[in-house]
Amino acid sequence: MTERPDPSVRRFDAAFRESFRDLVLWRRDVRRFRRDPIDPALIGSLLELASHAPSVGHCQPWRFVLVESAQCREAVRSSFVQANAKALECYDGERRAQYARLKLEGLEDAPVHLAVFADEATEAGSGLGRQTMPQTLQYSVVAAIQTLWLAARAEGLGLGWISILEPQLLCRTLDVPETWTLIAYLCIGWPVEEHLDPELERHHWQERVGAGRLIFTR
Amino acid sequence: MTERPDPSVRRFDAAFRESFRDLVLWRRDVRRFRRDPIDPALIGSLLELASHAPSVGHCQPWRFVLVESAQCREAVRSSFVQANAKALECYDGERRAQYARLKLEGLEDAPVHLAVFADEATEAGSGLGRQTMPQTLQYSVVAAIQTLWLAARAEGLGLGWISILEPQLLCRTLDVPETWTLIAYLCIGWPVEEHLDPELERHHWQERVGAGRLIFTR
Repeated sequence: MTERPDPSVRRFDAAFRESFRDLVLWRRDVRRFRRDPIDPALIGSLLELASHAPSVGHCQPWRFVLVESAQCREAVRSSFVQANAKALECYDGERRAQYARLKLEGLEDAPVHLAVFADEATEAGSGLGRQTMPQTLQYSVVAAIQTLWLAARAEGLGLGWISILEPQLLCRTLDVPETWTLIAYLCIGWPVEEHLDPELERHHWQERVGAGRLIFTR
Repeated sequence: MTERPDPSVRRFDAAFRESFRDLVLWRRDVRRFRRDPIDPALIGSLLELASHAPSVGHCQPWRFVLVESAQCREAVRSSFVQANAKALECYDGERRAQYARLKLEGLEDAPVHLAVFADEATEAGSGLGRQTMPQTLQYSVVAAIQTLWLAARAEGLGLGWISILEPQLLCRTLDVPETWTLIAYLCIGWPVEEHLDPELERHHWQERVGAGRLIFTR
């Protein structure tokens, strides 16, 4: 086997890797957005890039729904308010007060709302790789979301993932096929502020766990 | 609100974005590895970076198990062989012959085997964001895997995700806590070859779906 690098293969240098590390570190779950619009062509190009994420059996199960109507957005906001009130009841004392102070979404100001689904009935990929681990279909959609998140941050855009929602209700509200599973509801917009530390760390909800404590050997 | 850019905030330029796009496009599911070892410090730094992925409630549920023993690796290989034989039975005629010709894993040559789990019982994050969509715990681990995948490719390393395995059997083989769910079994190594097109596209198993067909509006 030759050790000579193939000139047709894309290589990445140390400077790129350093910037990529910064991109990962500066990605945040954003909840405070400016209301300025985003060029639809930019959103389109980000979704196109996200579609190059890995997917089990190359089945590309991601379905992106841009939620634009005021009626749909209001139903989503209302679902958040209800689910968040229920969630608050799970905490007591100081932890409850702390939860109540957290800002967990930017639904009102974000110019772009994106619901991301997995099409569980897709025939693409012919089931390859999904016999023993069928959840890989949903996992593929998450890989696309993380790709989108990093690509958005590289453009200076913020993205926030809201999971405090009733997924069944959202599927009905957005009138998607019954075979689609909601994976994520995302807010996208120009961020009001930027941070290197996660919001939940900054507000003492949860600190970072050292990576060394998460690695094991067998 | 001022429009003056904050100098303490990390910005990314068009050249970086172009390279990042190439990184996403040149990421592949690799099944052919050279046997050359990988510096453990490099693997450590990749896992550390992956640990900066987003996680629901900042719960950081990823658990990385480096599978090094010959006994464990043999059990994994054997699980693949069995699961793959079963999977083959799902296809008929030419599709079956086509499936049989595909190379779907690089377990024998890859110097690094990494099993990635979600710790479903973690107390980190105190359940925030997981009441109505508990699967977000597993999804967080996938975000870490996609981050790892891109970071590995930036180093010239190949990564392959094997889902044709019996997850319960692997959990027993690797003797992990009962509360851990297997998300992925990954092979990592220096690739023998590099491609811009996915293997399943190149071998006519599944073609790419135009991103425009995956975007909807409500």
